[in-house]
Amino acid sequence: MNEADPARQKADAEFISHDDLVALLETIFRRAGMADWVAAVQARNCAGAERDGSKSHGLFRVPGYVSTLASGWVDGRAEPVVEDVADAFVRVDAMNGFAQPALARGTPLLLEKVKRSGIALLAMRNSHHFGALWPDVEPFAERGLVALSFVNSFACVVPVGGRKPVYGTNPIAFAAPRAGGDPIVFDQSSSALANGDVRIAAREGRMLPEGSGVDRTGAPTTDPKAILDGGALLPFGGYKGASLAMMVEILAAALTGGQFSFEVDWSGHPGAETPRTGQLLVVIDPEAGGGRRFAERVEQLIGRIRDAGQERLPGDRRHDNRRAAARDGIPIQRSVLADLRARASSGAQPN
Amino acid sequence: MNEADPARQKADAEFISHDDLVALLETIFRRAGMADWVAAVQARNCAGAERDGSKSHGLFRVPGYVSTLASGWVDGRAEPVVEDVADAFVRVDAMNGFAQPALARGTPLLLEKVKRSGIALLAMRNSHHFGALWPDVEPFAERGLVALSFVNSFACVVPVGGRKPVYGTNPIAFAAPRAGGDPIVFDQSSSALANGDVRIAAREGRMLPEGSGVDRTGAPTTDPKAILDGGALLPFGGYKGASLAMMVEILAAALTGGQFSFEVDWSGHPGAETPRTGQLLVVIDPEAGGGRRFAERVEQLIGRIRDAGQERLPGDRRHDNRRAAARDGIPIQRSVLADLRARASSGAQPN
Repeated sequence: MNEADPARQKADAEFISHDDLVALLETIFRRAGMADWVAAVQARNCAGAERDGSKSHGLFRVPGYVSTLASGWVDGRAEPVVEDVADAFVRVDAMNGFAQPALARGTPLLLEKVKRSGIALLAMRNSHHFGALWPDVEPFAERGLVALSFVNSFACVVPVGGRKPVYGTNPIAFAAPRAGGDPIVFDQSSSALANGDVRIAAREGRMLPEGSGVDRTGAPTTDPKAILDGGALLPFGGYKGASLAMMVEILAAALTGGQFSFEVDWSGHPGAETPRTGQLLVVIDPEAGGGRRFAERVEQLIGRIRDAGQERLPGDRRHDNRRAAARDGIPIQRSVLADLRARASSGAQPN
Repeated sequence: MNEADPARQKADAEFISHDDLVALLETIFRRAGMADWVAAVQARNCAGAERDGSKSHGLFRVPGYVSTLASGWVDGRAEPVVEDVADAFVRVDAMNGFAQPALARGTPLLLEKVKRSGIALLAMRNSHHFGALWPDVEPFAERGLVALSFVNSFACVVPVGGRKPVYGTNPIAFAAPRAGGDPIVFDQSSSALANGDVRIAAREGRMLPEGSGVDRTGAPTTDPKAILDGGALLPFGGYKGASLAMMVEILAAALTGGQFSFEVDWSGHPGAETPRTGQLLVVIDPEAGGGRRFAERVEQLIGRIRDAGQERLPGDRRHDNRRAAARDGIPIQRSVLADLRARASSGAQPN
């Protein structure tokens, strides 16, 4: 979500290179209790989201990572266990660590299997996913593969006609290569809004669109605070979005052996914000069997979509932001950057 | 969609057993030009949709099947070619025949691969899918497997901000087993409505809900006739539904080697109604690696969904109709049944 006016944002912003931001975040994450290799993965993930304009999953999340590590809810030094369970099936136990480093550990075996089998699956459990989902699928499309991923989170979305939250925001991300440009990548929650967007609106005192959620009594509301304070989000698109939310719960939790969103209980860990659930990733080699010219065909589809009048494709804005950041650096509000620098030079010492 | 008042419907209905309806449809389809084995598959598919209350994909479609066969656009005697292209990847060339018989031919190899690999994929091209999609996934859930399928159709849905149709109604179907009841199965178009529903509304003179579509000038309309007459449907749920429509196009056509919805050109075959496109089917063994108690976990989720206040789950109505049909027979309007019997006893002779 593109909050805030870019011009206004730039006026009080400092521009920092992607590499410098990654280094800064690595220091913060290490000091907060992540192992070096975990901090490296998480810093790149968080800086990449900020760079690409996915602000709700960028620097906005840093305090949540730090407070969660301090709470003892997540293990920043977990060593994921990769299990080779079938010819095209990898299971990963993240051992109560973050999802992205566990995915990084499982990816080589997954790629080997995709190459041989044409399709392969990675099912992760005991994992904490607190970032954007598109960075998990985009790299596969850059290798010419198609990827689909599903993550559940914590109960904050009501089912059809329901009064109590059951589903997480439950995003689905998809990536595919194309011949004439950056991969097609989308990442969208099954809820009317993402949680991060609700929290940003609450912070900024903005009301939300109709159909966003219900308050603690189950009545419709557009007040982000009422949604966060015992209320819940609605699925997007009525019963169809609700079906997808249910499917994500089944794929990301039941199939992986992870927790359902409604099972996340962090009440014993004040400050915890990263849901401990599961994640499913399906990767397909579109050229298995050969000769289908997949990337060229996707390009033809995109040509037709543009010709019909759609100007921006999913992922276009992220790539525009990425190019601008490579040229000018990443604009970060001075107050945010000052906070990050303070966190990097003080706080908990690395253990 | 459950059109018409059930009581009124029953008053002028005759009840026929599922087996008798299958036999009647087989005769009609054979006379219209399908090979015996193709007619057997298609009759069971069409009768099952009618029995389960998926009326827009049941007997309503019979004239379309017959006129399409008469037009020479589809080959009712096609012999599908099943290709074993990788350890977990089956390709099927339906050879310009119907999708369901081609899927039936590819399924044994697909199941073999799922068993060994934990996940497998069937990518079909040159296929005509004119039925409901849930019958393609439900049988896998009945075997304890998880299945996902995607089919594109013909251009009738505009992209985000677009003025011309690009996508088909592009349904997604999902099926998963559960421990305490019938499988969880949903089948939903990426468009605000299914084409069959628009056609039924047009026939019955009903207007559609807001947000259903645009007329031939690109202006919003609730008139089904304006949508069918050069207009187009909208995706469900705004840009998120549009992303799914695009994904289905990529998976069902680009990845399979089938035609995009916008490439379907049946102008040389008056009477043709079955789009010649592609279909993707992904099947997963949720117990690969063992010990995750998948069906029990799905049951726990369902318990929570019901507890939150959702009374009917996806597929519940179909199973209720199926049980009622097993007890009482399938209610069919007398005029419809008379038409079917006339078609079965006259018309084109089997060749």
